[in-house]
Amino acid sequence: MNRTLVELLAAKRDGEALTDAEIRHLMASFADGTLPDYQMTAFLMAVFFRGLDDAETVALTEAMLHSGSVVDLTSIPGIKIDKHSTGGVGDKVSICLAPLVAACGVPVPMVSGRGLGHTGGTLDKLEAIPGFRTDLSADDFARTVGTVGTCMIGQTKEIAPADRRIYALRDVTATVESIPLIVASILSKKLAEGIDGLVLDVKVGNGAFMKNEMCGRELAEKLVAVGTRAGKKVVALLTRMDAPLGVAVGNAIETREALEVLHGGGPADLVECTLMLGAEMLVLGDKAKDLTEAMAKLRKVMANGSAARVMEKMIEAQGGDARVVSKPALLEVAREVVEVKAPQGGFVTGVNARAIGLASVAMGAGRTRANQIVDHAVGLAMDAKPGDAVHKGQVVARLFVRDRARGEALADRVAAAFRYGACAETPGPLLMGRVPACG
Amino acid sequence: MNRTLVELLAAKRDGEALTDAEIRHLMASFADGTLPDYQMTAFLMAVFFRGLDDAETVALTEAMLHSGSVVDLTSIPGIKIDKHSTGGVGDKVSICLAPLVAACGVPVPMVSGRGLGHTGGTLDKLEAIPGFRTDLSADDFARTVGTVGTCMIGQTKEIAPADRRIYALRDVTATVESIPLIVASILSKKLAEGIDGLVLDVKVGNGAFMKNEMCGRELAEKLVAVGTRAGKKVVALLTRMDAPLGVAVGNAIETREALEVLHGGGPADLVECTLMLGAEMLVLGDKAKDLTEAMAKLRKVMANGSAARVMEKMIEAQGGDARVVSKPALLEVAREVVEVKAPQGGFVTGVNARAIGLASVAMGAGRTRANQIVDHAVGLAMDAKPGDAVHKGQVVARLFVRDRARGEALADRVAAAFRYGACAETPGPLLMGRVPACG
Repeated sequence: MNRTLVELLAAKRDGEALTDAEIRHLMASFADGTLPDYQMTAFLMAVFFRGLDDAETVALTEAMLHSGSVVDLTSIPGIKIDKHSTGGVGDKVSICLAPLVAACGVPVPMVSGRGLGHTGGTLDKLEAIPGFRTDLSADDFARTVGTVGTCMIGQTKEIAPADRRIYALRDVTATVESIPLIVASILSKKLAEGIDGLVLDVKVGNGAFMKNEMCGRELAEKLVAVGTRAGKKVVALLTRMDAPLGVAVGNAIETREALEVLHGGGPADLVECTLMLGAEMLVLGDKAKDLTEAMAKLRKVMANGSAARVMEKMIEAQGGDARVVSKPALLEVAREVVEVKAPQGGFVTGVNARAIGLASVAMGAGRTRANQIVDHAVGLAMDAKPGDAVHKGQVVARLFVRDRARGEALADRVAAAFRYGACAETPGPLLMGRVPACG
Repeated sequence: MNRTLVELLAAKRDGEALTDAEIRHLMASFADGTLPDYQMTAFLMAVFFRGLDDAETVALTEAMLHSGSVVDLTSIPGIKIDKHSTGGVGDKVSICLAPLVAACGVPVPMVSGRGLGHTGGTLDKLEAIPGFRTDLSADDFARTVGTVGTCMIGQTKEIAPADRRIYALRDVTATVESIPLIVASILSKKLAEGIDGLVLDVKVGNGAFMKNEMCGRELAEKLVAVGTRAGKKVVALLTRMDAPLGVAVGNAIETREALEVLHGGGPADLVECTLMLGAEMLVLGDKAKDLTEAMAKLRKVMANGSAARVMEKMIEAQGGDARVVSKPALLEVAREVVEVKAPQGGFVTGVNARAIGLASVAMGAGRTRANQIVDHAVGLAMDAKPGDAVHKGQVVARLFVRDRARGEALADRVAAAFRYGACAETPGPLLMGRVPACG
């Protein structure tokens, strides 16, 4: 005999696992209005306390996925692989990664998000490119993936609408911090892209959503387990997010930095992160037999310019000014520069990613609430990173602002993010762990 | 710095105790619509898991109480005492208790509820009296308590509207079974009556909301602790509810039985329960120095007819036919009688209260959902109770129905509620525990 919706809420509250059919029934009732928001949030809070097992999370993910439409990329040859990062400060990896991987022959359909809180968003960074449109239709998206090899857009109305509604409720009911709900939210959106596989970058550290390795690993393992049960090839890397990734934090300034990587330049940690994730994508996409071969292929498409060509074609297909690829300086960065200097000699022992991210938001580069407008031109660059030796008075960071007084007011916050010591402390390795594909 | 509503939800979710001001802020926001239902239900589910300490429960109770108006009985001399039962099968105690206690000089303002699920409600039972109105205004209620000594009405719109809204949400979000929420709900309504003290009858057993003594005691202790902190004199008794209380289950038939008690008759367990609760009320109301003296006074007002006179005056004041007090047979009970017979000789070892309650609902005496109409005339009487010897074929119960065929269909359910054995099993004592007034 079928249980009522309230009985299902009580069962989850009491720690029972619901069946696939019961999860589908809950979500169908949410979709048709039979299950109102106030019942959904009671369910979400019960899940916060009781969790969902892998089978339940798969059922929830698929119910959310099928609340909307799934992009059909079956006519495009090849194994379609995307990357998702759980978000960090200075994380512009997607922008260089997608064309690199696509240039190696793996199609990369990528639906990205906007910045919120202390972390930036790929869409905001891309929109620093004059004319670039991230609101393509599903058809244009599929066509561009087919012709160019990659396309980067925002979540359309058709993609997992149940996830959007549920996320909005979680945001105001203190139910964001639930691993199964995070997993279902991430995977339902990513599966809607029409991918065959997914590489996950689970960021761990003060600048990330997951503050410690244990939580990060739990999330990574659940993402891989659930994604695999949902029929996809999934690998997750745990990467360090104590200091910002790369040197630049902002929008145009980060896109500039990502474009440098395409040409074989860019900061070492950003390059390392990009290559590690890209190599996993090539292996999942069957374009390399192992990570070593994959790395070599990625370095080749940097060196021979083919990754840059893919980027130019993608920008063109999305209405943007493709000249930025060869001339990143065309991306407007604010002219007023406020310098932050080391107050003492010694070594930089840490740069608090979260503090830098919040300073960047305060400069206007990010959002404290959805729908806020961002200023693509403002941002900051770090001229010293953890492990670097500095002398007293050396410039360790520069703020690029439109208004000098405002920049000076914020320089203190950027300065406060830097820690110094008499001895060099080597930062831990970028790669903290790896959860291989299972099943 | 004040925390946002979402921060308060997160704090409770994480097991933090909220301050009085924070609870008041939550409830004020709920009242003015700033905190929508979906946030309230997330809070309720968090409370289900994390609980509320006594101070938080007092704050919640008082916020719910002051969401409406409090009846002003200060002009009535004496210490006003009410009784509340957590609900059981055959529990018609209020109907005889209030006039008994009032006849001893303790004013009893009583706001009661309706039946739902397997338990009946005092209002439904009272409305079996021709003309009896339970929808008096607060002013008429106060006036009747003053002139008659007692008055029994239903919850008015003015009484704790926040409790009504929250209860409606709890009912559909699997958050009913939370002791602090139960305590706040009970006490906010009872405190709105203008009482000085309260005697609680916490029923324990298969026919009660609390299935075991441990849970019952937890609820009783919390009710006493919170009620006391809210400035009231509060005592709680734990009473057994494995078998129905008394002999009659239904509406008119239960009111008949309660009226018998007023005259010194009625089944022993019902009389015992009534006297125990009444004695506590007299002591709280300063009309007896101890329970023994109180019992004697209660027996006296039964014997000398003054309790019956109070009942007549109350019925008159509430528009009913007061002749029922001396002639309970005026209360219409359905004519068709279907007998249930013992299938074997021996002893009745148990009568499942819950099963009897549900059978009574199926007969039309109760409700499976709010707003259902009840049939006051149908009901059943148990002619054998646990501990009684029976011979094979002896009538152990009679169903009073309008339609014989329907009664016969339900007779099996009533029969199935009876358990028999070769040896007599003495039922445990009615009184399972007592939580004295504290502070």
